[in-house]
Amino acid sequence: MAERRQVNYNVQREILDEAAVDEMAEKSDSKTSLCEKVKKSMRCSGPRMKSCLLSSVPLASWLPRYSFKEDALGDLISGLSVGIMQLPQGMAYALLASVPPVYGLYASFYPVLIYFIFGTSKHISVGTYAVMSVMIGGVTERLAPDSDFMIWDNVTNSSIVNLGARDAERIKVAAAVTFLSGLFQILLGLVQFGFMVTYLSEPLVRGYTTGAAIHVIVSQLKYTFGIHPKRYSGPFALIFTVVDVCYLIPNTNIGTLVVSIVAIVGLILAKELNSYLSKKLPVPIPVELLGIIVATVISGQVNLVDKYGVDVVGLIPSGLQPPVLPVASLFGQMIGDAFALSVVGYGIAISLGRIFALKYGYKVDSNQELIALGLSNSVGGIFQCFAVSCSMSRSLVQESTGGKTQVAGALSAVVILFITLWIGRLFEDLPKAVLAAIIYVNLHGMMKQFLDIPALWKSNKVDMVIWVATFILTLLFNPDLGLAAAIAFSMLTVIFRTQRPKYSILGQIPDTDVYKPMEDYSRVKKLPGILIFRSSATLYFANAEMYQEALGDKSGIDITKLLSAKKKLEAKRKRHEKKNAKKARKRGGEDADNESEREQQKDVAVIEMAAEPDPSLPRTIVLDLSPVNFLDTVGVKTLRSIRRDYGEIGIEVVLAGCQSGVLDNLQTGGFFNDKVTKSCVFASVHDAVLHCESAGDQSQKELTATYF
Amino acid sequence: MAERRQVNYNVQREILDEAAVDEMAEKSDSKTSLCEKVKKSMRCSGPRMKSCLLSSVPLASWLPRYSFKEDALGDLISGLSVGIMQLPQGMAYALLASVPPVYGLYASFYPVLIYFIFGTSKHISVGTYAVMSVMIGGVTERLAPDSDFMIWDNVTNSSIVNLGARDAERIKVAAAVTFLSGLFQILLGLVQFGFMVTYLSEPLVRGYTTGAAIHVIVSQLKYTFGIHPKRYSGPFALIFTVVDVCYLIPNTNIGTLVVSIVAIVGLILAKELNSYLSKKLPVPIPVELLGIIVATVISGQVNLVDKYGVDVVGLIPSGLQPPVLPVASLFGQMIGDAFALSVVGYGIAISLGRIFALKYGYKVDSNQELIALGLSNSVGGIFQCFAVSCSMSRSLVQESTGGKTQVAGALSAVVILFITLWIGRLFEDLPKAVLAAIIYVNLHGMMKQFLDIPALWKSNKVDMVIWVATFILTLLFNPDLGLAAAIAFSMLTVIFRTQRPKYSILGQIPDTDVYKPMEDYSRVKKLPGILIFRSSATLYFANAEMYQEALGDKSGIDITKLLSAKKKLEAKRKRHEKKNAKKARKRGGEDADNESEREQQKDVAVIEMAAEPDPSLPRTIVLDLSPVNFLDTVGVKTLRSIRRDYGEIGIEVVLAGCQSGVLDNLQTGGFFNDKVTKSCVFASVHDAVLHCESAGDQSQKELTATYF
Repeated sequence: MAERRQVNYNVQREILDEAAVDEMAEKSDSKTSLCEKVKKSMRCSGPRMKSCLLSSVPLASWLPRYSFKEDALGDLISGLSVGIMQLPQGMAYALLASVPPVYGLYASFYPVLIYFIFGTSKHISVGTYAVMSVMIGGVTERLAPDSDFMIWDNVTNSSIVNLGARDAERIKVAAAVTFLSGLFQILLGLVQFGFMVTYLSEPLVRGYTTGAAIHVIVSQLKYTFGIHPKRYSGPFALIFTVVDVCYLIPNTNIGTLVVSIVAIVGLILAKELNSYLSKKLPVPIPVELLGIIVATVISGQVNLVDKYGVDVVGLIPSGLQPPVLPVASLFGQMIGDAFALSVVGYGIAISLGRIFALKYGYKVDSNQELIALGLSNSVGGIFQCFAVSCSMSRSLVQESTGGKTQVAGALSAVVILFITLWIGRLFEDLPKAVLAAIIYVNLHGMMKQFLDIPALWKSNKVDMVIWVATFILTLLFNPDLGLAAAIAFSMLTVIFRTQRPKYSILGQIPDTDVYKPMEDYSRVKKLPGILIFRSSATLYFANAEMYQEALGDKSGIDITKLLSAKKKLEAKRKRHEKKNAKKARKRGGEDADNESEREQQKDVAVIEMAAEPDPSLPRTIVLDLSPVNFLDTVGVKTLRSIRRDYGEIGIEVVLAGCQSGVLDNLQTGGFFNDKVTKSCVFASVHDAVLHCESAGDQSQKELTATYF
Repeated sequence: MAERRQVNYNVQREILDEAAVDEMAEKSDSKTSLCEKVKKSMRCSGPRMKSCLLSSVPLASWLPRYSFKEDALGDLISGLSVGIMQLPQGMAYALLASVPPVYGLYASFYPVLIYFIFGTSKHISVGTYAVMSVMIGGVTERLAPDSDFMIWDNVTNSSIVNLGARDAERIKVAAAVTFLSGLFQILLGLVQFGFMVTYLSEPLVRGYTTGAAIHVIVSQLKYTFGIHPKRYSGPFALIFTVVDVCYLIPNTNIGTLVVSIVAIVGLILAKELNSYLSKKLPVPIPVELLGIIVATVISGQVNLVDKYGVDVVGLIPSGLQPPVLPVASLFGQMIGDAFALSVVGYGIAISLGRIFALKYGYKVDSNQELIALGLSNSVGGIFQCFAVSCSMSRSLVQESTGGKTQVAGALSAVVILFITLWIGRLFEDLPKAVLAAIIYVNLHGMMKQFLDIPALWKSNKVDMVIWVATFILTLLFNPDLGLAAAIAFSMLTVIFRTQRPKYSILGQIPDTDVYKPMEDYSRVKKLPGILIFRSSATLYFANAEMYQEALGDKSGIDITKLLSAKKKLEAKRKRHEKKNAKKARKRGGEDADNESEREQQKDVAVIEMAAEPDPSLPRTIVLDLSPVNFLDTVGVKTLRSIRRDYGEIGIEVVLAGCQSGVLDNLQTGGFFNDKVTKSCVFASVHDAVLHCESAGDQSQKELTATYF
């Protein structure tokens, strides 16, 4: 044992000296690495042009190696299936975005093609997405409300909404916010901000999408019931809308409601059948496509519009629209929305992309994804699309039907192009209620996320709180503000989690070098004269005070009392000395008064005795700092004052298990000085204990002199 | 070594079983402790009435034990000195609060008396405080602006401000916000929210007070130059005010400016003299008192008001005002301000109180302090005081002149009472510019805080960022909003600090059980076949992804590549098997084609060989989790996926050094299941390494069977 101890010490000494030298080296290192970083960020210059092209246009790297034999068939089937899904979803989500349905088809075409060129995920289906669409709906209805487009109808003698002008304005707004969000994404991608997705933790994303789904549902109730509630915006808009809808329920259009119920029930049954047959069918039945075909045919034959006043999709222009530059004057009013859209869109796409990448063993570049989505949106904005991300349901279909590469996405875009050019206008009789039904049924996956609550309750309560808080914040505020609030909240939970750490006195597991909390394990033994203290969390401003208090509580040492007792004693001693000096002066050459001297000696003896260290107190306190991630100035000060205060009453405080970063913090924070040297820092608790034990064996001072 | 290893294992096994049992016990324990807490919080019931009285009225506990012999003289001198300081400061700070100077005297009397009864700090001087006063000034000028009190003056034929009515309204506003902030403090004290002061870290408080000092200075420029800038409120008000002052500088009243300069220079010189003589004088010269006396006399003799248009204090009513209930209807407009006042006032008082408590070895009860300050403010509000806290400069004088207990404060209140009743109105000729000069000179301590920036730059850069950010936020927003923003910012820094942890591969210091980062120390040795990985920070959502990436980077294992290679191999093997089966079926009973079979065997051999583990890969990865404070669900999932992924390519991943809280998180987070048992968790890195080494010696499978 003794030999090993010696080795430990020597090694440790050397290490501490080494550390100082290494530090210097490290600092010059970090400069070099900065240079390298700059070089890297400028990697497009010079002969690396080609690799730069390959990394910024992934198509160029994977398409030449495309294996027709292996991938083509899967991609074809998958592309067709996804394209067929894009049609009803695109039209339905256009309703959410408050633009005419055909713009949902555009949004399923241009951005998909752009992503095909720049995207790195092989399996996600880029295109319209419910949450993004409802966020765009918020912007379009705020900036182009019905009330701005009232005209006087001479026929009915009442004011009606000029739908044409309104929709034209809304399309402009949607295109502008989409373009702007795309610019944000490109910008974030260029400055390598892909890591920001880490702030979108899983409980947050799931709580958020569930909350947004409720927004989606509420915004579609008007189509289901055929009513016209007022449009609210700002915080609590959802609640006002729900109240308004409840007031208007008596005005329900029965025809629309019947269509809604039939569509919803039909879709659910068909979907159930689909999942029941999923193992037997190579490609899932295109339930939604069949649904809108059947609904369109019935609606056209029965003439639902005129007979029952059912609201239908209406005019669908054939062909594509020429590109138009977005209206820059609108940007000022939508910066916040555009930023929220860019973050949400990216967050959803990257999380899905990662899941597939992990499953199939390839890599998704988060910054490249940002740029790809940004280009999709900004180019899409020019072609009057609304902002896209990727849809969970479509991506799952794309993967399960055998899609192998981005080619599947491109094929789905071709399908949409075909529909837009020739078939689209056949759907003019489609009731909007059916599209709303498609939205509801597509949201059932998000509704299932409510089951996260009990699951998280069991596994991690703080994460459950994040989920619920995000959900409620998203409900109460709109999806954009709610997201910001939720992110801030989830960051604050880190404070809460470390705000009330668990403090423990550690004991040794006999005959080992393992130290464990005394209250958790009954076999651990307290070491005589040594107190080992550990906090479960980093020591920083939010818990520094508690650390000091807990040390006092757990150790049973009332440091303020002992310190003031010591001060009083010292004051007493000083007064005594003064008195003696006075007396001595007074008496001059006289002989000492025997009685007074005896009394005085007694007093001094009492003082000396009281000054002796209490045998119940430990000789040394070892602070185990291994769970400390960093120290701020408050933390350093706390450690310094603990060392000073306990030092005053004769207890040595040593630190153990500091990481090198923490040691740096101590160093720069001025913890060490002439009196406090690095000799009070030990590599591990066991080393500190060995030191204390050996110090206890001999006279402590001698030992210190020998070693340091 | 072998024996010790055995012991380790056994102990560890037992511990893990114990842990499960202990967990149950602990849970029932925590219930008991909850009951106890409830009991404690109801401690006022029953026979403990007396101790309850003593703890909520500290006066009752310390006054009976007051030692006239030891403390009375010091308290008397100290009380007189502080009372003399309270006079000029109170009048000057009343200007900051935009109320007539005499109300500053009231604020130096009532609250001080209340604190004498309920306070626990013996050395702080409660009373007017510059930062609080300027915050109140913001409220009074916002709710009772000059523009609301314009009347038409028939003499000059212009509209002038009805000063009487305006000041009466401002006094009401100040009293109301003071009362409300007192209520908040009492409430916070009753719900034991004293701990909230921990969020006010030192860099934050110092940056904040420096920023507030700038607000104070800017608000006093009008008195120094004798000009009348517009009043701005809301964000950036400071900048607008400064711009306005610059525009108005040409209109400076020369008489006022001369008085200001003379007063400032005189005060600075006198203060310097004071600090130079401080060791020789028992009591500091009352510089400010002398200053206002001299200024008043000169002003009265020369008749500065009429000759040079110098603004003077004006009417000072003798005697006290009857109590008036605050105007509750104003509360709605000042909730935010009142809350900010209560937090700031408490924060300043408790930090100063703690410093003295530590120095003199007594204890300051943070919740009782909240209640004491709250009572001071709410009672003060009823007597038309403005909100108080404690002033650094006065507290230092109180302590250095020998103040021993709260009696010094009470005596200073008596001095103020005496002045208010009989002497106050002698100061009616005092120029306001002199009071502004007193404010400037008192702020020089806060200006010195700018030196924190270089000091923090050296010691802790993140804390420097907190300081600077708090300062700028306080400057740009007003002190109330700025404080909220600064607190939010300082909390976010905890995220930033753990956002980019340092990842290291650990190596063993030869012949010890200490493991240190390979890059920090040159003597540590990498263990063959074992990779020890550590992150310097807690593993949670903000850095979980980076953890996985860093593990791949540092270990040099490209897990995605290896996994996809493995998948491809498996697919190949499957195809082979299928082919073989097909062939076998085809051939039926035919004899095997020799050549084909040989080829096939070769293929299989290639596959098998490729499936063999790469010898350059480690057998085991040990994740050192000792710096982990908690795991959220993202963290648990990350660990699970690391274990699964590396497991697939034949590398065992074990965890070491988990705290019991982290182990709980793993347990509830579903990390353990039938396949992953607690046997992959080790008490320390060394234990994990011993396990791996012993597993390496023999066949791994055998050993696993033996031990688990």
